[in-house]
Amino acid sequence: MRKGIQMSEGVCAPLGFIAGGHTCGIKPSGEPDLAVLLATEGPATVAGVFTRNRFAAPSVRYNRAIVGRGQARAIVTNSGIANAATGQPGFDNTMELARLTGERFQIPPDQVMVCSTGIIGVQLPMEKLATGVAAISVGREGGRAAAGAIMTTDAGPKLGQHTLAVGGGQVTIGAMCKGAGMIHPNMATMLAYMTTDAAIGRDVLQQLTTEVAEETFNAVSIDGDSSTNDSLLVLSSGASGIELAPDHPDWPKFRSAFRDLAWEMAESIVAGGEGVNQVFVVQVNGASSQEQARLIARTITTSMLVKTAVRGADPNFGRILCAAGYSGAEFDPERMDLYLGEVQTMRKGLPIEFDPEQASAVLARPRSTITLDLHSGVFGARAVGCDLSAEYVAFNSEYTT
Amino acid sequence: MRKGIQMSEGVCAPLGFIAGGHTCGIKPSGEPDLAVLLATEGPATVAGVFTRNRFAAPSVRYNRAIVGRGQARAIVTNSGIANAATGQPGFDNTMELARLTGERFQIPPDQVMVCSTGIIGVQLPMEKLATGVAAISVGREGGRAAAGAIMTTDAGPKLGQHTLAVGGGQVTIGAMCKGAGMIHPNMATMLAYMTTDAAIGRDVLQQLTTEVAEETFNAVSIDGDSSTNDSLLVLSSGASGIELAPDHPDWPKFRSAFRDLAWEMAESIVAGGEGVNQVFVVQVNGASSQEQARLIARTITTSMLVKTAVRGADPNFGRILCAAGYSGAEFDPERMDLYLGEVQTMRKGLPIEFDPEQASAVLARPRSTITLDLHSGVFGARAVGCDLSAEYVAFNSEYTT
Repeated sequence: MRKGIQMSEGVCAPLGFIAGGHTCGIKPSGEPDLAVLLATEGPATVAGVFTRNRFAAPSVRYNRAIVGRGQARAIVTNSGIANAATGQPGFDNTMELARLTGERFQIPPDQVMVCSTGIIGVQLPMEKLATGVAAISVGREGGRAAAGAIMTTDAGPKLGQHTLAVGGGQVTIGAMCKGAGMIHPNMATMLAYMTTDAAIGRDVLQQLTTEVAEETFNAVSIDGDSSTNDSLLVLSSGASGIELAPDHPDWPKFRSAFRDLAWEMAESIVAGGEGVNQVFVVQVNGASSQEQARLIARTITTSMLVKTAVRGADPNFGRILCAAGYSGAEFDPERMDLYLGEVQTMRKGLPIEFDPEQASAVLARPRSTITLDLHSGVFGARAVGCDLSAEYVAFNSEYTT
Repeated sequence: MRKGIQMSEGVCAPLGFIAGGHTCGIKPSGEPDLAVLLATEGPATVAGVFTRNRFAAPSVRYNRAIVGRGQARAIVTNSGIANAATGQPGFDNTMELARLTGERFQIPPDQVMVCSTGIIGVQLPMEKLATGVAAISVGREGGRAAAGAIMTTDAGPKLGQHTLAVGGGQVTIGAMCKGAGMIHPNMATMLAYMTTDAAIGRDVLQQLTTEVAEETFNAVSIDGDSSTNDSLLVLSSGASGIELAPDHPDWPKFRSAFRDLAWEMAESIVAGGEGVNQVFVVQVNGASSQEQARLIARTITTSMLVKTAVRGADPNFGRILCAAGYSGAEFDPERMDLYLGEVQTMRKGLPIEFDPEQASAVLARPRSTITLDLHSGVFGARAVGCDLSAEYVAFNSEYTT
């Protein structure tokens, strides 16, 4: 039944999920701005990772409580207004949106998670949302529509899926997300949803989600700003009938596919940021701990000087070593090797001769890789960043009230 | 004798110091690139604060040792080449430059501090430097020439002085510095030197330097990158004959003047950064600790979204609260008040009505102030940042090998 479909179905690819998108009229552009994702066969197991911003939106505080209980039936998302910095009325509106969605789909409102993205400091237009929730249609083919409706300034919908053979059958993982580039006129949000028809226990699913978020969504940077609403939500329907846990022989295979899909989503968020022309992946090897490796990789991806160097295809490796140096990580500079793509520019902490044109050509690629080998241990980490362009600055500064 | 001089003499303003600048031919532009600052009446007490970058240049490691001994006679500085990532030969060259300077001025070479700023990964041209050190002339009127010779891409020399009546006489504090904007084709450095003719003990001077650096030079951000060579060096000649220490009744007055001059230098560094059009000061009040206040103030000054908002004179206060939110500081968002200049935009964590044109006019000023009141304690801190402009991006990305 699921064969022969060519387009990615995103969160609807795994069995047991339907979704849809709708236009409520929140966005001045008239683009779709309401999405619903529904677990068809009863409550799904749920896990989540949320922004650590102290100005967390009401929806984040509300979803944290549901994730704490471990079960959910639906996620309703509106785009256009983030419902952040909205006080008690904002919290009441989140609850009301959950109630309306529960009523429409005849599910308990306390199993409806709510996400909002868009401008802050503005209350949700509850009448428009009530009309939208009543009118939205959801179905097996609604994955792309849902991915479209959660967008803010994203250039296009971001969704993906992966099916793999495990335990004598097959399970599918689906995903959709929206961009984290911080946006005119206020700020946007990284929202990511993943679904699977594998049956996974609550604690295992939460641990998987936390770990994979750290390796993927938390390793992306467009401008270093983390928003009030950032959320990753994961639902496991169990509809494949295949139970998975860390002691299952195929667990590593599943975990790896899950992480790869999450990474693909995370990279698509960076590539789709406003004013982004180039993506660069920083791979740190040979660190004394995972944490040290991450610290270095992430510091390099957020360095404005590295970002502008990538923009100019400037093989200015001194900026990279400088960022590694101030990352706060502990390592011996005199052991560090550095590569731009396949071109080595430093050995044991000292510059070596290289062809600057070849190195420049590496950085001019739409997707380039910077590799540091610290020769201080066995741990590695990667992070993904983007160039800093005049377009980015224009996009984020041109608005004047 | 010191009366009637109108121009700022910078580090030569206090008694007991002479300085000069010279052109060695390190810079392709032919601009001055060698500066010497000399204590005329014997060793001065010295204190210093240095970059924490793990790729600290040889000169930083060398100066740390001298500061550890607490006495110095001179600082020799070359601009054009940072002598960073240069391995053992780089360290040898630093030592040699100290030796040459000691020989020239007949002072012990182990009392000569060495600073370098400019491109990295390149060895110093020791012949040019030897010729320069032999030819440089130093004197009472050389403060401005020295300030000019330590520049890299600074638009002009940065120097200042302050004289104050203390203990029945007067003491003077002088300063010069150069910009920290990270620079084509590699990276530059924040170098700052302060001198005083007050007699201050070594431990007291170091404590003053450390504390004031934290309040001033460490509170400035152009692009968040801290370089391999950043240094603040402070010399006390004692030539005024007035001894100062924390138990002196005029100590608070002296400390305050010292801090104000340091802040003035720090602000001049930000204002002089490449592509900088606007400076903004973030003042955080009512924090539960100094550290929390600093964390918030500094996070706001480094936020790319705040920086672009300032650039566009966009009173987009959501970006400011968002940066405060992800700073990692602990505070209650529901108590926070926020002001752009004199215009209040948030009260108790919620947006309030304000005149956006008035707020935009505030941010359009060459120097604006953003004030947060956390109402959670009695501590405050300020930090200074600058706009992020298309010119900055152009400056830092246009170079392609």
